[in-house]
Amino acid sequence: MKIVIAGAGAMGGRFGYMLKQAGQQVILVDSWKEHIDIISQNGLTVESDGKRESVPFTAYHTKQIAHLEIADTIILFVKAMQLPEMLSDLQSIIGQNTRVICLLNGLGHIDTIKKYVSHKNIFIGVTMWTAGLVSAGHIHLAGDGSIELQNITPSENESGQQLVDIFNEAGLKARYSHDVLVSIWKKACVNGVLNGICAILDCNLYQFGQIPSHHDFVAQVVSEFAAIAKSIDNVDIDQTAVIKLIESTYDPEKQGMHYPSMHQDLVKNHRLTEVDYINGYIARKGKEQGIPVPYCELITLLVHGKEKVLGII
Amino acid sequence: MKIVIAGAGAMGGRFGYMLKQAGQQVILVDSWKEHIDIISQNGLTVESDGKRESVPFTAYHTKQIAHLEIADTIILFVKAMQLPEMLSDLQSIIGQNTRVICLLNGLGHIDTIKKYVSHKNIFIGVTMWTAGLVSAGHIHLAGDGSIELQNITPSENESGQQLVDIFNEAGLKARYSHDVLVSIWKKACVNGVLNGICAILDCNLYQFGQIPSHHDFVAQVVSEFAAIAKSIDNVDIDQTAVIKLIESTYDPEKQGMHYPSMHQDLVKNHRLTEVDYINGYIARKGKEQGIPVPYCELITLLVHGKEKVLGII
Repeated sequence: MKIVIAGAGAMGGRFGYMLKQAGQQVILVDSWKEHIDIISQNGLTVESDGKRESVPFTAYHTKQIAHLEIADTIILFVKAMQLPEMLSDLQSIIGQNTRVICLLNGLGHIDTIKKYVSHKNIFIGVTMWTAGLVSAGHIHLAGDGSIELQNITPSENESGQQLVDIFNEAGLKARYSHDVLVSIWKKACVNGVLNGICAILDCNLYQFGQIPSHHDFVAQVVSEFAAIAKSIDNVDIDQTAVIKLIESTYDPEKQGMHYPSMHQDLVKNHRLTEVDYINGYIARKGKEQGIPVPYCELITLLVHGKEKVLGII
Repeated sequence: MKIVIAGAGAMGGRFGYMLKQAGQQVILVDSWKEHIDIISQNGLTVESDGKRESVPFTAYHTKQIAHLEIADTIILFVKAMQLPEMLSDLQSIIGQNTRVICLLNGLGHIDTIKKYVSHKNIFIGVTMWTAGLVSAGHIHLAGDGSIELQNITPSENESGQQLVDIFNEAGLKARYSHDVLVSIWKKACVNGVLNGICAILDCNLYQFGQIPSHHDFVAQVVSEFAAIAKSIDNVDIDQTAVIKLIESTYDPEKQGMHYPSMHQDLVKNHRLTEVDYINGYIARKGKEQGIPVPYCELITLLVHGKEKVLGII
């Protein structure tokens, strides 16, 4: 099967690598020219379990794909803010049966994808796989993961199941889900609580858990996500369970010493964050629906404030 | 007149110096031992207009004032969080006619002072004077200032007027006010908007004014202060005027490059902030009165969060 990985950074590289090892025909597409040039010349360098290998790949810059054939499947792994431009660039290889899979963190992506892809061809999900980018053309894989996946149009259950099988043949531990929106909201909610505040306060999860009133913050942000999840997608977030899950991440023996990805973007790398697709999405929808979501609003404002102060925007 | 300056840092030092030059009998009291020791031995070093002089002062540590006579007037210039302990230490020199003047920034001080001082002897106000502490025993004076002052008990108008006269004899440009609470709330509101967010984002006033949605933030925080001012003290804050005043501070040709005092405490000196007497006061009163004040709540939580992350609390 011809699979295009649209956004071939750390995660896209991991998926491309594992699917290619399982015999799929994989093409990497990315807007980072240096990355694509190195992969084209030397292959993608994949480090894992102390081994390092160079894996040959067909790789293209996003602006150089007009000559490609229609893809069977496209897996989106861009940063949230690059999604519209990437989908626009992919138009020439999206046919009437091209399945488009979105496993991005955050909210609101389905609405964006619907503008470019027939609804019946859209598949969404969440993944617990991780990966690291070492440098251009070079990724690092560690740890275990999984995927939950579902078609957004009920008639396409079978097609969703087929994609799950393809992922499983590649060892990507996929599961067909009947309520993937619940998982998407739950993951977004966890990120919405922890990402912004750890970036603003320049702290890790353990340090966040030491802050007076941290529980009040968690409960309020979770309640705001729950209100919007219910209103927009009729999804019920089990607030008690999500709060428990969040508070379990503080343990310094487990994830506690970890800095969430938004901290890495903002504080470490001075890069634009994805806050508009997490707390910012809740803030926008809250305004539209007349539901008060003040903590998400202020977290969004503060993260953009820090982006501005640091000269990122 | 025997005037005790309770809290003899930069501001207390300025007031003590100016009142002493005008012929008052001034005693400095402070809990910072090194400061008091240096003043007792070498006098208070006052730098101003390129001149430096050493001014002899009677100075005591707060725990060594039991032998002092009853004071005529006490001027409070401690940090807000030190107010209860200072008032407790001052008990032996507060007589039934000792006037106690509070010019501290922030809110809630009157309730604290009422626990230690007869209501008829309490005078409150705001001051625009500033001063800098160079080192122990050494202050720096620059710029102009003023004082607004009022007694909290109407019967004491005359006594309030007398205090205004004493300040004016010392060049402190005091004015008797008939609605000093309005001025106190207005100053607290300006501080409540700018202090916390500049400390959290590590930015100056100009940078704050460059942040997207800064106006939304200002308007929301001002509205929260206004709601509590009305509910607690029946004070009407002119929100449009205060917002205009706040937004006038961004100009880099004027105050824009200035970092508010909470930034200096938290970011520069890693000292405990006074947030509990500004946004934290609004958060507590909002909870008590059932008035939603989410931005003040979250600003308070974030400032305490940063204090915790930096190891200050």
